Amino acid sequence: MELQTAKGVRDIPPEEKIVQNQIVDTLRNVFETYGFAPLETPILERYETLAAKGGAGTSSDVFNETFKLKDQGERDLGLRFELTTSLARFVGMNSQLKMPFKRYEMGPVFRDGPIKLGRYRQFWQCDIDIIGSKSMLADAEVLAIIDTVFNKLELDVIIKVNNRKLLNGILEQAGIKKKEDAIVAIDKLDKIGKKGVEQELLERGYKKEQIVKLFEIIKADVSITELKQKIITNEGKEGLEEIDQLFNYLKNMDVSSAIFDVSLARGLGYYTGTVFEAFLKKGKVTSSLAGGGRWDNMIGKFLGDSREIPAVGVAFGLAPIMDVLKETNNFTKRTLAEVYIVPIKTVNESLKITQKLREAGINTEIDLNEKGMSKNMQYANSLGIPYVIIIGEDEIKQKKVLLRNMVSGDQQLLTLAEVIKVLKK
Amino acid sequence: MELQTAKGVRDIPPEEKIVQNQIVDTLRNVFETYGFAPLETPILERYETLAAKGGAGTSSDVFNETFKLKDQGERDLGLRFELTTSLARFVGMNSQLKMPFKRYEMGPVFRDGPIKLGRYRQFWQCDIDIIGSKSMLADAEVLAIIDTVFNKLELDVIIKVNNRKLLNGILEQAGIKKKEDAIVAIDKLDKIGKKGVEQELLERGYKKEQIVKLFEIIKADVSITELKQKIITNEGKEGLEEIDQLFNYLKNMDVSSAIFDVSLARGLGYYTGTVFEAFLKKGKVTSSLAGGGRWDNMIGKFLGDSREIPAVGVAFGLAPIMDVLKETNNFTKRTLAEVYIVPIKTVNESLKITQKLREAGINTEIDLNEKGMSKNMQYANSLGIPYVIIIGEDEIKQKKVLLRNMVSGDQQLLTLAEVIKVLKK
Repeated sequence: MELQTAKGVRDIPPEEKIVQNQIVDTLRNVFETYGFAPLETPILERYETLAAKGGAGTSSDVFNETFKLKDQGERDLGLRFELTTSLARFVGMNSQLKMPFKRYEMGPVFRDGPIKLGRYRQFWQCDIDIIGSKSMLADAEVLAIIDTVFNKLELDVIIKVNNRKLLNGILEQAGIKKKEDAIVAIDKLDKIGKKGVEQELLERGYKKEQIVKLFEIIKADVSITELKQKIITNEGKEGLEEIDQLFNYLKNMDVSSAIFDVSLARGLGYYTGTVFEAFLKKGKVTSSLAGGGRWDNMIGKFLGDSREIPAVGVAFGLAPIMDVLKETNNFTKRTLAEVYIVPIKTVNESLKITQKLREAGINTEIDLNEKGMSKNMQYANSLGIPYVIIIGEDEIKQKKVLLRNMVSGDQQLLTLAEVIKVLKK
Repeated sequence: MELQTAKGVRDIPPEEKIVQNQIVDTLRNVFETYGFAPLETPILERYETLAAKGGAGTSSDVFNETFKLKDQGERDLGLRFELTTSLARFVGMNSQLKMPFKRYEMGPVFRDGPIKLGRYRQFWQCDIDIIGSKSMLADAEVLAIIDTVFNKLELDVIIKVNNRKLLNGILEQAGIKKKEDAIVAIDKLDKIGKKGVEQELLERGYKKEQIVKLFEIIKADVSITELKQKIITNEGKEGLEEIDQLFNYLKNMDVSSAIFDVSLARGLGYYTGTVFEAFLKKGKVTSSLAGGGRWDNMIGKFLGDSREIPAVGVAFGLAPIMDVLKETNNFTKRTLAEVYIVPIKTVNESLKITQKLREAGINTEIDLNEKGMSKNMQYANSLGIPYVIIIGEDEIKQKKVLLRNMVSGDQQLLTLAEVIKVLKK
């Protein structure tokens, strides 16, 4: 048998998982500071749920990449391709939930798609959503979270913000009825420029006249003020009002990384209002690090009745954030152990000292294999453990241990209390 | 469409997930204190890997409960049913790993089995394993971790410890060659008593004479000292020596919850030495909360060569631990928010105060829906948020806010700095 992972998935080894855990901890801490509660939905969903009208299932390529399977009772199941669909199902099934319901969920999602560099068939999504508030306050909270997360991760990002109502209004004003395709094309304005978008719109069957009208309104960096003078449709005006209110709240919340960008559209069909995406300002990673928006209709459609259950949220992509950190972090820590104990014929006493260090909250490893001194030093070095403690019979007699700083090479004979003081700082 | 989860899986709502996160945090903290590093292996594995010789695949019912699926390239895949098989594959694929390799992994596993109360088709396992040490020091570390974890969770457990070599030796001494079935029967000594085990052994085709010899050696609470006088086979003696050494180390590590129990066997076929299982001393939950042992042969068999790569580890079951906590914890916290802000016509100023509280590390929620005062109080109450801050125009003028303790009903007009002091304590 050849040992290998399944195609398109990968192991995350300790040196990467240590950093990933730090990111997840940061996300969780920020989410909880903003009053979000954790939820866990299952990875296995009924295929019918994933395919449901109103969800991603009917509006994007994502659904075509669903891993399908059957259980022993021949029931059709799928592996979730995002967390949003399961959240919509959960809210639909739990009418006792107090609104707004603010939840976060972090975990793997699955897409049986083509393999590209940095794209895997199993990857983590980290989502927050606010269910049950139509207010732009909710959108502002979500954007403030994105801002806070990247501040804490010390990544300099801009969050591009737009509004689907505004986009719809602009398209209406340009005489465009088939809006979905046009939105997909406009989304590329930043990447392929005005010429490229024009070309794509022509190819997709839009009329020259419509395209000219469209570009009378949108330019790569048109401002809200300019648009206020140009937009005449009701839906467009409503979108502008929402954006205005949102940016007012963001100012009061001191969120400076959010900027208006009329060309941002987002691929998924279920967005209904605010849409946003966060990008690194400088650096090699150009894919978005987080993206989301308002999706007011999905849960109502799931419930199959006329109720509108508004929702707004964001998904953070762990993989692109890791990619950014790889640019500056060399991922050399292979363990979280802070000290490595080497007993020299003092196993029993060394075990007692090891346990005392652990009780003091110091991450401690002890030689399990009676390695020689040089092999022990190599081991500690290769894992990146900063300190080694050597305990021989002499040290036990003196009630001290020898603490070696693996970076400087300095050694000190110290009492256990002194060692704990050094390692705690 | 009917909204429901897939059969046999469930949502973990905030009130439970909050507690589950606390358990996972405790586990992770202990694992890291003992110098274990995190690893994440994929949920999707090649079916061939899951079925590999030497793994659980060839020796237990677990493998028959594998969820099977195919990717778009028609490759045979399965959802992992445990974490151990993936670990063995990872170690086999990464010859550069420094030994001992101490890793932890926590995540969902899947079993397409019959649904019972409290048994689900997707559930969390939390594993630690030490790869590359034959020393009983490694087994002692694993047992010390179990002891520390349950101390921190304030659960009073006993850890039953036995050794497969000892069991094999006893069976050999009783003239029993077909050991697997006999071990499964002996494992039930605690549950069905001596009579029951005798009956089962007879039914499984063992001879009366063998059974009599067997029970000359093992009794429900036979001690190590007694066994030392009875055991004459080499393998049995080796097992006893290992147990002796293990309990010596455990004494030095101050692990008092571990006891020797000759009847403990564990179902999985891949164990080769020490085996153990942790049970609650008193209470309704009788299933094991953690279990593991030494599995020295699996990785070598995976690699298909003669190398022995020794391993010892434990899996903690999150579901039974949650079940125990449900006996005493009423799971009333539906959020981690510590304070809920109610603006009365002061949204902009209230947003600023909200952000300052969050910057101070206080989990803060703000009314997003301009609810009335009584609805806001109901909301805070039903989520279990301990404090509410009311901010009207008067308060803004006085540069103070009204802090309400939701338990006592007391209200105080305080500056923001004073509020932070109260909430931080």
